[in-house]
Amino acid sequence: MKRAVVLLSGGLDSATVLAIARQEGWRCHALSIDYGQRHRAELAAAARVAAALGAAEHRVARVDLAVFGGSALTDPAIAVPRAPSSGIPVTYVPARNTIFLAVALAHAEVVEADAIFTGVNAVDYSGYPDCRPEFLAAFERVANLATRRAVEGAPIRIEAPIVRLSKAEIVQRGDALGVDYSMTVSCYDADREGRACGTCDACRLRREGFRAAKLADPTRYRDGATFA
Amino acid sequence: MKRAVVLLSGGLDSATVLAIARQEGWRCHALSIDYGQRHRAELAAAARVAAALGAAEHRVARVDLAVFGGSALTDPAIAVPRAPSSGIPVTYVPARNTIFLAVALAHAEVVEADAIFTGVNAVDYSGYPDCRPEFLAAFERVANLATRRAVEGAPIRIEAPIVRLSKAEIVQRGDALGVDYSMTVSCYDADREGRACGTCDACRLRREGFRAAKLADPTRYRDGATFA
Repeated sequence: MKRAVVLLSGGLDSATVLAIARQEGWRCHALSIDYGQRHRAELAAAARVAAALGAAEHRVARVDLAVFGGSALTDPAIAVPRAPSSGIPVTYVPARNTIFLAVALAHAEVVEADAIFTGVNAVDYSGYPDCRPEFLAAFERVANLATRRAVEGAPIRIEAPIVRLSKAEIVQRGDALGVDYSMTVSCYDADREGRACGTCDACRLRREGFRAAKLADPTRYRDGATFA
Repeated sequence: MKRAVVLLSGGLDSATVLAIARQEGWRCHALSIDYGQRHRAELAAAARVAAALGAAEHRVARVDLAVFGGSALTDPAIAVPRAPSSGIPVTYVPARNTIFLAVALAHAEVVEADAIFTGVNAVDYSGYPDCRPEFLAAFERVANLATRRAVEGAPIRIEAPIVRLSKAEIVQRGDALGVDYSMTVSCYDADREGRACGTCDACRLRREGFRAAKLADPTRYRDGATFA
């Protein structure tokens, strides 16, 4: 069976991507990156999602990005915004997808994978430069120059099956594949049990996705959550 | 003063690169990656080298590559070779330079650096695919698509000033710039005090470099070190 590394954050997008990769017949090596994120409940969610969707394994690699600060997701001094913003948001983590793909590439070489699946999305996250298709194409070129396996004749593909889908299209796709989204955590400011705040950018996008898809929102919100 | 992130391993090559960047007038943000390497004495050496060569700061970012295994440098089950080998050596760490450059890119964005300096070398490490100039060029393209700063008009360069130099040329260059190589640790199997084994690939290359450059070898070898 052909093998893939699937970057799994524990959120809605990457859970959908894992379900897509499984449907396509890949043996999936799920990989989560612990980068000092505030929303650590995502890592527990990732383990549940990996098991529920039939990943062959699930590993967590620790990458200390908090040492640099610079993002609301890793720097306690920067607040998670409660209202929509324009441009690149403060929740942007410098070079995050470059780092995630690089670590996935290391794992891909060790397990002899032919693809890396990522849940990056250029529609909802248009403010993040490292979510654009041209970024992914450039990284694929790096990947094929970087590793022993690629140089020895086994090229690797970067697969981003939801990169051009709206959030509504993503949840429809996942719903059809049987993804239980109540397991997933998207909130930038979830509590320890993974219950969502309801008001951060990620919560808003997610809620609007279920609404536009005409699907019930299974998200577990915390007591007193307010909705923008 | 223009700013650069300088990847500093504590070894001979990256110490030379830091000296070159300082001579060129860059304010240098030295960055070491703790990736679970066996030769941890390198990290202590990196701190000494950063201070001695006038880096503005020195940070250590932890990236857990040992979770994947697959290399003699991170996997205790794989022995460091004691004799020259052909092809890509077992000391190759999957995707190492991709990961190092990605983490440096995150730091570069936070400190607003215009360049990342790396000590990769395509001459001595011809067996490592991620030491080739075409790999570095491809990564520079990724870097300029990946970050907010680049997208907003401040491109970043990947500088590899010793990529085409022999080890002898590297030590001659560093010697002329006043680098004290006794501070540096190259050995793949150094002891806790950073004293070298004398026989691993890295020790051999280093010793031959000083010999070919007609410079005294200041390396601190451990008692009983044998030379191939």
